[in-house]
Amino acid sequence: MEIYFAGSIRGAEADKPLFKRFIEHLSSHGKVLTEHSFDFDHSQEIRLDDHGIYELDTGWLKDADALVAEVSSPSLGVGYEIGYVEALGKPILCLYKRQQGRKLSAMIGGNRKLKIVEYDEEEEAMNAMDDFIDAIKKP
Amino acid sequence: MEIYFAGSIRGAEADKPLFKRFIEHLSSHGKVLTEHSFDFDHSQEIRLDDHGIYELDTGWLKDADALVAEVSSPSLGVGYEIGYVEALGKPILCLYKRQQGRKLSAMIGGNRKLKIVEYDEEEEAMNAMDDFIDAIKKP
Repeated sequence: MEIYFAGSIRGAEADKPLFKRFIEHLSSHGKVLTEHSFDFDHSQEIRLDDHGIYELDTGWLKDADALVAEVSSPSLGVGYEIGYVEALGKPILCLYKRQQGRKLSAMIGGNRKLKIVEYDEEEEAMNAMDDFIDAIKKP
Repeated sequence: MEIYFAGSIRGAEADKPLFKRFIEHLSSHGKVLTEHSFDFDHSQEIRLDDHGIYELDTGWLKDADALVAEVSSPSLGVGYEIGYVEALGKPILCLYKRQQGRKLSAMIGGNRKLKIVEYDEEEEAMNAMDDFIDAIKKP
């Protein structure tokens, strides 16, 4: 099982410590292809230009069995990755932390091909990942 | 010629007056399918729930001959629309207003299937739209 974890990287509100805990949790189910994408000091991506990052990440999207996307912050990259993986027909889980005065994009929240889970507590997100991966594993 | 114009709607930095000037400019080339999407008081979208908006917008994406996306603000919806239209094999122009201390997502900026134009002045964006549409019209 290869899992692509997506989250806002360049957005102002990117929550890298949380993303790392999500990746660690997902690692119990399989290989997380983007496990080092949220390390600022990771040498591989830093050596790459934008086209190199694009080629690396879309290669992983093609390899992945499933996409888990954290969609609490607006992000062109995460939105693009969801559209890309949906076109490949692979299962997608979107995790959205409820925030006062904000609303998830209708292009994500209104898309019935996506599994959308809204959470308040981190544990709810962890449980949603377990349920999502278990459902894929069972034929 | 039917053109889908995309821009951040729910993002904090959405610049609706600018988007309306872009749409007005694009209208000289053909029908802009999303011409009313940036009117807050437009009755049609307000009556729709998120799934209705999703179905309406993806219907337009399927109809469109081209996508013009304003990508200066992070947006899940705009990123998704770019991924969706790219999968349909249609031409895409991305307009990015240069901003100090900010950088366009690598998934957009590093994607060579997209035409990316960075602008400082509004007129540069208008000219880029003209060139993009003219190139599509010429076989």
